[in-house]
Amino acid sequence: MGLTGGFKELRPAYGFDDVAIAPGSVTVNPELTDVHFSIGQFTFDFPVLAAALDASVNPFLAREMGKRGGLAVMNLEGLQCRHDDAEAAIQEVVAAAQEESAAVIQRLTAPPIKEELIGRRVREIKENGAICAVSCTPANTKKLAPIAVDAGCDIFVVQSTVTTARHLSRSVRGLIFQELIANIQVPVVVGNTVGFEPTRELLECGIAGVLVGVGPGAICTSREVLGIGVPQITATIECSAARDDYYRATGRYVPVITDGGMRNGGDVCKALVAGADAVMLGTAFARAEEAPAKGYAWGMSTGHAALPRGVRIKPGSDTTLDRLLFGPTSRTDGSENIVGAVQTCMGMVGAQNISELHDAELIVAPSIKTEGKIYQQAQ
Amino acid sequence: MGLTGGFKELRPAYGFDDVAIAPGSVTVNPELTDVHFSIGQFTFDFPVLAAALDASVNPFLAREMGKRGGLAVMNLEGLQCRHDDAEAAIQEVVAAAQEESAAVIQRLTAPPIKEELIGRRVREIKENGAICAVSCTPANTKKLAPIAVDAGCDIFVVQSTVTTARHLSRSVRGLIFQELIANIQVPVVVGNTVGFEPTRELLECGIAGVLVGVGPGAICTSREVLGIGVPQITATIECSAARDDYYRATGRYVPVITDGGMRNGGDVCKALVAGADAVMLGTAFARAEEAPAKGYAWGMSTGHAALPRGVRIKPGSDTTLDRLLFGPTSRTDGSENIVGAVQTCMGMVGAQNISELHDAELIVAPSIKTEGKIYQQAQ
Amino acid sequence: MGLTGGFKELRPAYGFDDVAIAPGSVTVNPELTDVHFSIGQFTFDFPVLAAALDASVNPFLAREMGKRGGLAVMNLEGLQCRHDDAEAAIQEVVAAAQEESAAVIQRLTAPPIKEELIGRRVREIKENGAICAVSCTPANTKKLAPIAVDAGCDIFVVQSTVTTARHLSRSVRGLIFQELIANIQVPVVVGNTVGFEPTRELLECGIAGVLVGVGPGAICTSREVLGIGVPQITATIECSAARDDYYRATGRYVPVITDGGMRNGGDVCKALVAGADAVMLGTAFARAEEAPAKGYAWGMSTGHAALPRGVRIKPGSDTTLDRLLFGPTSRTDGSENIVGAVQTCMGMVGAQNISELHDAELIVAPSIKTEGKIYQQAQ
Amino acid sequence: MGLTGGFKELRPAYGFDDVAIAPGSVTVNPELTDVHFSIGQFTFDFPVLAAALDASVNPFLAREMGKRGGLAVMNLEGLQCRHDDAEAAIQEVVAAAQEESAAVIQRLTAPPIKEELIGRRVREIKENGAICAVSCTPANTKKLAPIAVDAGCDIFVVQSTVTTARHLSRSVRGLIFQELIANIQVPVVVGNTVGFEPTRELLECGIAGVLVGVGPGAICTSREVLGIGVPQITATIECSAARDDYYRATGRYVPVITDGGMRNGGDVCKALVAGADAVMLGTAFARAEEAPAKGYAWGMSTGHAALPRGVRIKPGSDTTLDRLLFGPTSRTDGSENIVGAVQTCMGMVGAQNISELHDAELIVAPSIKTEGKIYQQAQ
Repeated sequence: MGLTGGFKELRPAYGFDDVAIAPGSVTVNPELTDVHFSIGQFTFDFPVLAAALDASVNPFLAREMGKRGGLAVMNLEGLQCRHDDAEAAIQEVVAAAQEESAAVIQRLTAPPIKEELIGRRVREIKENGAICAVSCTPANTKKLAPIAVDAGCDIFVVQSTVTTARHLSRSVRGLIFQELIANIQVPVVVGNTVGFEPTRELLECGIAGVLVGVGPGAICTSREVLGIGVPQITATIECSAARDDYYRATGRYVPVITDGGMRNGGDVCKALVAGADAVMLGTAFARAEEAPAKGYAWGMSTGHAALPRGVRIKPGSDTTLDRLLFGPTSRTDGSENIVGAVQTCMGMVGAQNISELHDAELIVAPSIKTEGKIYQQAQ
Repeated sequence: MGLTGGFKELRPAYGFDDVAIAPGSVTVNPELTDVHFSIGQFTFDFPVLAAALDASVNPFLAREMGKRGGLAVMNLEGLQCRHDDAEAAIQEVVAAAQEESAAVIQRLTAPPIKEELIGRRVREIKENGAICAVSCTPANTKKLAPIAVDAGCDIFVVQSTVTTARHLSRSVRGLIFQELIANIQVPVVVGNTVGFEPTRELLECGIAGVLVGVGPGAICTSREVLGIGVPQITATIECSAARDDYYRATGRYVPVITDGGMRNGGDVCKALVAGADAVMLGTAFARAEEAPAKGYAWGMSTGHAALPRGVRIKPGSDTTLDRLLFGPTSRTDGSENIVGAVQTCMGMVGAQNISELHDAELIVAPSIKTEGKIYQQAQ
Repeated sequence: MGLTGGFKELRPAYGFDDVAIAPGSVTVNPELTDVHFSIGQFTFDFPVLAAALDASVNPFLAREMGKRGGLAVMNLEGLQCRHDDAEAAIQEVVAAAQEESAAVIQRLTAPPIKEELIGRRVREIKENGAICAVSCTPANTKKLAPIAVDAGCDIFVVQSTVTTARHLSRSVRGLIFQELIANIQVPVVVGNTVGFEPTRELLECGIAGVLVGVGPGAICTSREVLGIGVPQITATIECSAARDDYYRATGRYVPVITDGGMRNGGDVCKALVAGADAVMLGTAFARAEEAPAKGYAWGMSTGHAALPRGVRIKPGSDTTLDRLLFGPTSRTDGSENIVGAVQTCMGMVGAQNISELHDAELIVAPSIKTEGKIYQQAQ
Repeated sequence: MGLTGGFKELRPAYGFDDVAIAPGSVTVNPELTDVHFSIGQFTFDFPVLAAALDASVNPFLAREMGKRGGLAVMNLEGLQCRHDDAEAAIQEVVAAAQEESAAVIQRLTAPPIKEELIGRRVREIKENGAICAVSCTPANTKKLAPIAVDAGCDIFVVQSTVTTARHLSRSVRGLIFQELIANIQVPVVVGNTVGFEPTRELLECGIAGVLVGVGPGAICTSREVLGIGVPQITATIECSAARDDYYRATGRYVPVITDGGMRNGGDVCKALVAGADAVMLGTAFARAEEAPAKGYAWGMSTGHAALPRGVRIKPGSDTTLDRLLFGPTSRTDGSENIVGAVQTCMGMVGAQNISELHDAELIVAPSIKTEGKIYQQAQ
C-alpha cells in the first residue's frame, strides 16, 4: 500500500456559482411553459415558496402569497406565536440599534409559545382561502403539530439544520415521522437534508415534501463553526435522484424543494435544472413591501438562547411581491421577476414544464470575475 | 444505488481565461500566414467581423470595413431603420445623462421599422462595393429578409440569444430555416447557438454560417437572470466539432463565428484555435473613431420595451479601425492590431492558415493574478 | 512516447478551505458524543492540544489545561528554560516595539538552555497533577529528553519542520527514535510529518503519537522560501491511512494529531473527519487570558539566530480557556467553543466518538466568497 | 456521436502557484547537498543563471557571477554592443521619466550592433577568468555567433520567444542548428521552448542546453496579446521528460534551464523538482547592487522598433549578489539566499543532488489567500 491507494475519498460538489445551464436543441415560447407544482393534494401556480422567517412571513404575507397561487410557510417558534401583538414585536426588532438587535431578538423569543396563538395565526392565514403551511423543529413537533392541524393548517413543515429519519438521543422516544404522518392527516414536509441515502430514508417515512440544503452558502455559520455544508447544486442533484429512485420503486412522487443560498433568478433556474420541483427563498421575500419587517431580515436561529447564530441584516425594502415574482422589472441583476426568469429559461432550454426542465444540461462553468473587459460584447 | 451512481452529470466547460495556446514543433514566419475566411461565395481578408450593434455598425463603418476587405453586420431592428436621421438618434443616446440613457434608448427604439429605410441603408452600405450583411431576430425574419435581399443585401443574419432549428410556439408557423434559405437566395448566417446537437441541426437546414455564444461572459445578464451560459472555448469547440462532422458527411464547409466575450487579441487567437473560422466583436469596434457612437456602446436588448437588458457603457473612443485591426500599436494589452496578433500567434504555433490553426494545442491554464511578483522576468 | 505519457505525475491535495463535511443518514444528540483521546497510557477529555509556543504555553497554562482534562506542550528550547524569570522575558518581548520584536526574541533566545530550569518547569507543570508534555528538536533530544524525563515529564515531543525516521548527516550518529524510545520510558510523540510512507516509518519506530503538518497554510514561510507544503486535509488523510495500516498490522493504535493551519471550529471538525484523533492549536491558545503573552504570538523559529522565520503578531487577548474550549459563546465565527462545535458536528453526522467521526464524509467544496448575495437565506 | 465524444481535448497545465513540494521519507543535512550543474564541458557551482537583460547583466556582473562559480548571459542585441559607452546608455534609460522610458530604450536600441564591441564585451567578461556566455536571436545568429566565438565566448545562447528546430520562412535558408553547432565549436544553448516534441527535436540537433518557458506568467504580454503561454511547472516537466528520453536513447545528458516566472526561492525549488537542472532569473539580478541599472529592469523586447513589448519597471536595488544567492538574510519572503533555499529544500526531501531532487514529489495545492486566519499557527 502506498500513497496512491486506499485513502479516504473526496467527491466533488458544486454550488450555484460553479455551474451554468446549457441550451438544448429545441426552444419553446415561454408562454407555453407550465410552472405549477404540488405538495400532496395541493397544487400551486409557481414553484417559489416563502421561507419560515419572521421577517419574511406573517399571516398577511401568507394570505398575499395565497392570492397569487403560491405558498408561504409561517414559523410556529418565532415571534408570531409568542406575542399577541406579533407585529409590534417585529417592529421592536426593526427599531433596535444594530448592536442591540440580537439581544432584542433573544429577549422577544424568550416568552413561551402560546397554544391559542397557533390557532389564531392559522385562522388569520386562511381568512381568504390561502393554503396554510406552518413549521417547527422536530423537538416541538409532537406537541405543536396536532394543535396547528386542529386549527386548520393544511401542510405541516418539520425543519431543523439537519434532519434525518433516524435520530439518537437519551429521551425515551424522539420524533418518529411515520407516527407523525399517521396521526396528523396533513401532508408533512421535512428538512433540511442533503444526500441520497438520508433523503431516501425520509421518503420511506411517507413525507410529502423534502427541503434540501445544509450550510449551502460559501460563507455560512454551519461551515465556519462546524465545518458542515454541502453546495446546493450537488445537494439538489442527489436528493432529486433519491426522489426519482423512490418514485420508480413506489409510484409516489414527492417534491424536492431547494432551500437556501439562491441570490437571483439564475440561481433559482439552476436549482430547478438540478432537479428541484420548487425553491424556498427567505431574504428575497423580506425585501417585498408586503413583508413584515420593513426590509430587515434575521434567521430562525438568531433568537436562540444558548447559541444564537446570524445577525439582523438589512437587505432593504425595494420590491413588491408582484414585481419579485412576476415583474415587470427594469433591473438586470435577476432580483425581480423570478417566475418570468424561470419561464424564459425554460423557453431557451426547450422545457414545457418543470419535469422537462430537470432534463436540461448543467455544465461546470465557474463565474469568476475577470478584469480588463476590453472587448466584451454589449449584447 | 448509492451516492456514487446515477446522478445527473456535469461536464466541465472552459472560457478564455481558463485556457492558453501551446506552441508546437514548427514555427512559421508570420508573413507567410493566410487569414482569409469565407461565407458562402464571399471571401474576406481577415477573420474579424463587426457585430450588429447600433454603437458599432452604421453604413459608414460597414463601408470602411468593406474597404479593408472585412465584414460588418448592421442591425435592422435598431435605430438605423427606425429613424430617417439615424445618426441624430444615436447622438441623442450619446448626449443623454447616464441614468436617462436606457429610457432614451427605449424611446428611440419604439418607432416602427420603416421598410424604405431598410433599402436605403443597404444601398448606403453597398455604395462603394462593400459586401452588405444585415441582421434581425427570428420573429421579424420572414418579413424583413425579403425586403433587405430585394434591396441588394448580400448576407442575411438571423440572430437571437438562443436560436434552434426547432422552436415551439403558439403561432401557426414559426420561422423554418429551410424555407427561408430556399426563398431568399443569399447566404443565411444563424445564431446564437452552443452545443454539438443544436449546431448540427442548424447546419442541416442549409445555413451558410453559425454564430457561437450564449451568455459567454463570466458576469452577464443571461447568467444572472436565467442561469444560462456556456463559456466560449467549450462552446466553440463543440460547434466546430459539429461543423467538421457535417463537413465529413456532406462535403459542405460552413464557417463557425465565435461571437462575444473576447477582450483582446489573445482571446481572439484562442477562439480560432478552439475551432472558430472567424470572430465577431462588438465593443472593440465601438472604440474606433469610425464608429457611430463616439466611444459609447449598448446592446441589442437595451431598448427592449418590456425587459430591457444591459446599460449604456463608455469604453471610450481610443483607436482607429486600422490600428484596431492591423496596428501598428504601442500598447501591450492586446487591444490593437488584432489581425497582426492572429498572424504572430499562427507563426508561433506553425499554422499557415486558419484551418491549420485549428490543430494547435489548447491547455487548461487559468490566468489568476498573483501577488508579490518579485522575480518575474522582464522579457 | 508523446506528450500524453510518462510525465511526472502531480496528485491533488486539499486544505481546509477546499472541503466541507457532509451530514449522514443518522443524527445523534450532541450530549451522547464522546470526545476523549489517548496518548500511550494517558487519556484526555477533549481532543484539542495547546502547541509548544512560548506565547501559548507556560507552566501556568499547562496546569490550567490539565485541570480541564486537556494537554499543553511546553517548548524546552524557547524562553522558559533559558531564563530563571521566563515571564519577565516574555513580557520583554511583549513590550518591544513591533520593528524591534524579532531582534528582542533573537536576543532572549541566545542564552543557553539551563538544565536545572528544565526540571523546575516540569515540576511547575505537574504541581497540581497535570500531565506534563515538553518538546524539543531532534538535534537536542538526546541531551534534553533524559533530563526532562528524570524531572517527571510524562510525554516527550520531538518536533521539527520535517522529521523522518531516516536522517542523513555528517555526524557519526544522529537521533535514532528506536533508541530514544527504548531509553526514556515515556511516550514519545514525533512530528511534523506528512505522507503515508514517512508516517508509516515513524510508527515502526515505536512512537506514541504523530504530529501532522508541513507548511499547511496557503501562505507560509515554508511555501514561499522552500516551495514545500502539503495542505492539511490531504496530509491528515494520508497519515491517518498509515496509522490504520499500522494498526491492522500490529494491533497498536497510535494517535494522529493535526498541527497547524486551523482557524476555527469548522477547520478542527474537518481535521477530525479527515482522520485526526486530536488537533494542536497555537495562536488560538495565545488568545486566551490565561496565556503568557497578553494576546501576542510568535513562532518557534522567530528566535533562530541564523535564519529567523515569522514575526510577532497580535491576535489579541479576547477569550478565556473555558470559552475557547467549551463556550458558551456569542460569536458566530467559530472562534470559541471548539469542543462544543466538535460535539455538535458529531451530532449532525451521527458519530458517537472520534473513531466514528473518521467515517463521516468529506466533499470537495471550495469556500470562495461571492458577491451580490441578494437572496441568501437568513437562516 | 454526441456531445461526449470527439472534441478537441484540453490537457491541464500547472504553474508555480498551483503546486507544492511534498517531503519524503528521508531527510538530509543541507550541508551534504551538492548543487553544481554543467553545460557542455563547463561546470558551475550553483544552478541559478542571470538572464540576458541589459538591466541585469553587463560585463561587470558577468565577472562577479564568474567569481562565485556561476554564469550570467549577456545580450548581444541590447545596448552593450551598440554603444561604446554602454553604461552611459543604461544610465540614460534609468534617468528617463517613466513615460519617456520606452521611447528612450527604442532610440538607444536603434543604432547598429558593432562587431568590434562584441569582441570587447567578450574580453571584458573573461578578464578574470569567468566563463563567458552571450545570446542573440535566431535571425542574427549566423552573423554574430562566429564573431563572439572568435573573441573567446565559451557558450552561445540562441533565444527568442518561441524557438523550434523547424522554422518556415521566405528566406532561402534560415538558421539550421545542426550547421551552427558543427561550425562554431562551443556549446549552444537554445530557447525558449515548451513541450516534449519541440524539445526533443531541438535536442536531436545537438544543442548543449535548453531554455524552458513561453509566456509563463499568469499575466504576461504573450498571454494577453497572442493567447500563448504554458505554465512553467508543466513546461518544465515536459521538457525534462524529453531530456530524459533523449538521454536514454543517446547517453548524452543535456541540461534543462527553466527561464522566467520565478518570484522567490520556493518557485526556484519547484522548478528544480519539476525537472530543471538550473533556473534563469532576470529581475532578481536587476535588484542586486552589482547590476547595471540601479534597481530598474526592462525586457529584451522593450526596445523593439515595430512592436515594443513590456515597460521599464523598478523592482528596486535592495540586495547584493551574495545575499541574493547565498544569504544570510533576515527576510522571510524567499527573495534572498536562493541557493540556501534550494539546499534546505533538498534536505527536507532527502535529495543529495539536483538529480535526486528531480525525484521529489510535487502536489497540486493552489496557494489562494484566505481571510480570517484566526487560529493559524505561529510556528
